[in-house]
Amino acid sequence: MAENTRLTLTKASEHIHGYTYGTAEVTKSPVSIQELESLKVSVGFTEEDQRYLRVAGEVLADQLKELVDHWRGDIIAKIPNLARHSRSLEGEPLPDYSAKSGLRFQQWILDTCFRPYDQDWINYQQEIALRHTSLKKNQVDGVTSTPYVSLRDIIAFVAVMDETVKPFLAAKGHPGAEVDRMHNAWCKSLQLQLALWTRSYMDAAQLKNEW
Amino acid sequence: MAENTRLTLTKASEHIHGYTYGTAEVTKSPVSIQELESLKVSVGFTEEDQRYLRVAGEVLADQLKELVDHWRGDIIAKIPNLARHSRSLEGEPLPDYSAKSGLRFQQWILDTCFRPYDQDWINYQQEIALRHTSLKKNQVDGVTSTPYVSLRDIIAFVAVMDETVKPFLAAKGHPGAEVDRMHNAWCKSLQLQLALWTRSYMDAAQLKNEW
Repeated sequence: MAENTRLTLTKASEHIHGYTYGTAEVTKSPVSIQELESLKVSVGFTEEDQRYLRVAGEVLADQLKELVDHWRGDIIAKIPNLARHSRSLEGEPLPDYSAKSGLRFQQWILDTCFRPYDQDWINYQQEIALRHTSLKKNQVDGVTSTPYVSLRDIIAFVAVMDETVKPFLAAKGHPGAEVDRMHNAWCKSLQLQLALWTRSYMDAAQLKNEW
Repeated sequence: MAENTRLTLTKASEHIHGYTYGTAEVTKSPVSIQELESLKVSVGFTEEDQRYLRVAGEVLADQLKELVDHWRGDIIAKIPNLARHSRSLEGEPLPDYSAKSGLRFQQWILDTCFRPYDQDWINYQQEIALRHTSLKKNQVDGVTSTPYVSLRDIIAFVAVMDETVKPFLAAKGHPGAEVDRMHNAWCKSLQLQLALWTRSYMDAAQLKNEW
């Protein structure tokens, strides 16, 4: 594998504004490795899934922008209730915000496929979730947009990503059974992440219910 | 369609203990039809999905017990963290509780496939969720078991049901593309229901965080 490809697999871009994975800026999550392991058992997420996520990552690595553009341009942009979260309160586009969060969105795909699911990963799931609640949304990019994304819309959009990633997973000509395995692994990982994200929403709900 | 079959499609059994769908015993949910419609748009749940859920329901109708037994006997029973929720606090089986909640579980499959998603359906999603929180778990069957099922385990088990329902959907020999459509519709419906269930957990979290 060429050095260039290896770089692609690790980072969606050389500099990603606000991407703080594994740094001291990321607060430690109250969720432990033991709780994550238990959650993996409940989801049925196995080492085989982890392997198939790596294959999925190799398949998606040169389609990151296309995939995120599909989610944002073809789906979110057409659903006003979702589109507003990346716009100003007056509904104007915020191109700089969209560009920066779009790169982080691309990187999240790579992290889903390639990162070890360890304490750094757990901590960053919390960071991702908080950046969708009123505790941290808009802050890293210094914008004025909706104060938070409702938990229910996060849950809903996981279903959308699960359904719409499939043709991208099939785009490199893998046999149907392999694509199914990549897809199963992807869906289970997203549900695992969703379970972690709800922890932050549940904690925040004790102050303010952002369902 | 014979009258008998029609009955099967509506009810998993003539009498289902604690099944109060559509009755005055079910509290009205604070979630409105408009919020549900908006959520369907976010999930990408269309009329075609509703049609394919009906097909799925016809496929699953004579496999209800087999499917629920598979989830409970082959999966939940082997995961102590999940199995404890249908046992006594000492870990003993509670056969009467399991039988009654098992029938309701079967009926939930039929309701997922055949019920119109209206205010009664919204209200019953709240009832289902509350029966997994400490506000209502164990009450309808008068048992002493774990006080609640963690939200994260509900989220995790949705992924399990999504993955494991597929061979049951394929069991009647439908072409692969049809099975995929049934499966997509199923996954979207479950995620929609999950979004509704989290509302009850978020409300309850203001008293006590049951993540």
